Formats: sequence, C-alpha cells, structure tokens
Amino acid sequence: MKYEEISKTTLRRMPVYLHYLNSVKNERTNISASAIAGKFGLNDVQVRKDLAAVSGSGRPKTGYDINELISQIEECLGCRDRTNAVIVGAGNLGKALLSFAGFMDYGLDIVAAFDTDPSLAGTVFNGKPIYSMEEVEGFCRAQDVKLGIITTPVGAAQKTCDRLTACGIKAIWNFSQTILRSPEDVLVENENLASSLAILSKHLRE
Amino acid sequence: MKYEEISKTTLRRMPVYLHYLNSVKNERTNISASAIAGKFGLNDVQVRKDLAAVSGSGRPKTGYDINELISQIEECLGCRDRTNAVIVGAGNLGKALLSFAGFMDYGLDIVAAFDTDPSLAGTVFNGKPIYSMEEVEGFCRAQDVKLGIITTPVGAAQKTCDRLTACGIKAIWNFSQTILRSPEDVLVENENLASSLAILSKHLRE
Repeated sequence: MKYEEISKTTLRRMPVYLHYLNSVKNERTNISASAIAGKFGLNDVQVRKDLAAVSGSGRPKTGYDINELISQIEECLGCRDRTNAVIVGAGNLGKALLSFAGFMDYGLDIVAAFDTDPSLAGTVFNGKPIYSMEEVEGFCRAQDVKLGIITTPVGAAQKTCDRLTACGIKAIWNFSQTILRSPEDVLVENENLASSLAILSKHLRE
Repeated sequence: MKYEEISKTTLRRMPVYLHYLNSVKNERTNISASAIAGKFGLNDVQVRKDLAAVSGSGRPKTGYDINELISQIEECLGCRDRTNAVIVGAGNLGKALLSFAGFMDYGLDIVAAFDTDPSLAGTVFNGKPIYSMEEVEGFCRAQDVKLGIITTPVGAAQKTCDRLTACGIKAIWNFSQTILRSPEDVLVENENLASSLAILSKHLRE
C-alpha cells in the first residue's frame, strides 16, 4: 500500500490512535471509528477518513479488527523499520529526549549524543554514549545515521544543521529556537517552544 | 494596536525574529525585511507582511529601527506581561522545562511543579518548588495561575487537564502523547513528539 496521499494532519493523529489501540487491545477485539472519535473528542467522519488512509473501511456494526488496525498503522508509521538518530546538544532537553523510552516504539533508535562540552565527552547517559562534536561526521557516516536531533543553543544550531546534512542526514528534528536553512531534500521538523508559547500567551490576553 | 488579525503562522515566527533582532541590536540601528528574510531563508514579502502586523512599514532604504521593532514585537507577544504557569509531571521532560531560562523572556513564569511521586513532593529543582498533586487546585487558585504545562504519562493527562481547567486555567501546553478534551474557552497547544516523529519518519521512507 502506498501512503503518499496521507496528509500531515492525518499522519500526526496516527501515533495517538496507535497508542490508544494498544491500550485497549487486551480488552476487546473490535472497535468502531465512533468509539475512537468519542475517546478524543474528534469528529466521527474525520476518524473514519484518517483510518481509511491505512486500512479498508471498518465492517458495519463490528468496526475494525483492533490487531489488524494496529499492524496497518505500524506499517504506515514505519514502526518496524529502524532509523538511527543522533542528538546534538546533551543539555537538559537533550537528556530528556535521551531518556524517552517511547521513541523505540516508532522505530527511532537514538544511538548517540554529541556535545561541545569536554566534560561530557566519553560519558554515558541512560545507556547512550555522549561523544565530542569532532566525532559527529565520522560517526554518522559509519552508522548510516539518517535523522539528527538538534538541541543546541540558537547560536550553534545552523552550523550543526550544516554539519549533519553534509554527512548524509536527511531529516532534522529542530528543538533550537531558530529557523534552519537546509538542502531541499532534507526535511526539518520544528519544535519551537517559544513559538508555541506565543500562541498560548496570545490566547490568555484575548 | 489590536493584534487579533495576526495569523498563527505569523505569530509563530515572531519569537524567532525577536531573538535575532536582540542578537544584532548592539551592532546596528536599522534593519531591512530583506536582511531578516535572508538570515532565515524566508521570502522577503512574507517577512514584510509579518512585520506589518506589529509595526508600520519599514522606511525605504533604511528599513526598520531595530529597537522600535523589538518593542513592538515584545508588546505583541506580551513579553512585558507576566503569566504564572505550573508544570504537572516533574520527570525528565518536566525538569528540562523547569530549567529553561528563556521562558521568562516571553513573560512566562513557571512558579511550581507538581508530581504524584511522594519522594519529589517538597523538593526544589532549579529554584522551583515541586509539590504533591493534592495541592494543585489550591495553589493554582491562590496564585492566579492561567497556564498549565502537562508532562505526565498518557494515562494521567486527561485527568490532569480536567483538574487544571476546573480551577481556572485557560491555556494548556500539552506535552503528553495524547489528544486532550477541554472546555471551549481553554486553548490546548500540543507538542506531540510522536506526531513530529511520524512526519520525519515518513520523509525518510519516501
């Protein structure tokens, strides 16, 4: 099955559905789109449309077979593939991400972190090695790393992005508070906390 | 000046512009929209349109007065107001957020964290007190807390959201990996890491 037609907004909901289905799969064998919609306060039609992108339609009255639907969503999300990732910037946020066990459920394996702080180089956090920044290019090429997570301060972010993309990284998860320039074939996904805060803060002043 | 007409996408770029303007304000007094656009690889027209939402247009040739533009963006973002916030869930991610000094630049003051773990109650992290969950309602009412940051596991997130909104919180910053149901006048801004990962992972498999 090809997934190119899935919209980003649908794709963003898939991990939420997957998590929920896994939490109820031992209690029941089937589930309806309406039950999922009700759980999250979403529209029935929206959920049905989302699921149609990965599955056939649910059967009338019985709905979807839960285990089958889980498999289909996992396949769509590439949960069974394995993607090697590195984190650059092993401060508080970098360490928080190193500690998340849940990334492996989505096939993401954070294999190492890198930092400019010489006191961190050679240490291990949560079972993951932290290396000096000088080693980043060699490591990424040797381990075929495809995804880079940037948790550096703003001033170091663009240079980090340039170094990662120069050694074959095709996707950047940007937690730094700036906009990054990257080659056309590299996808940058931004988690700009200050930007989210701007939206929340405006709502509070309305 | 009224800001209701600012789009969310424009608003999300404002903190990025602000950070950049602050970093160059000691080197120069004026800046053009093209210079800002060039810095971030954005379109000139887009930057001009974004800035027009908070400022008059820049002067021909000289552009914008940097200090004036900084003030205007700060006012738009409510940086001089002060919003009391609490974090619920003082695990790795909660602690990473407690450590971010940058939130105060946007007027956000994280005044306390709450956790169900009894060994955390009564401790202090990065100068911020961590209290037992039983104290959350009383604290939020007494301190007029308007923003709640949820960094709990999925299973506790909806209940946390219900408790926070019941005691007057009007904006929720949701870092848990689920969709939350909230009253209509409460804005929920989602930072769903698994959803971002789904987007990145799909790109890598294309």
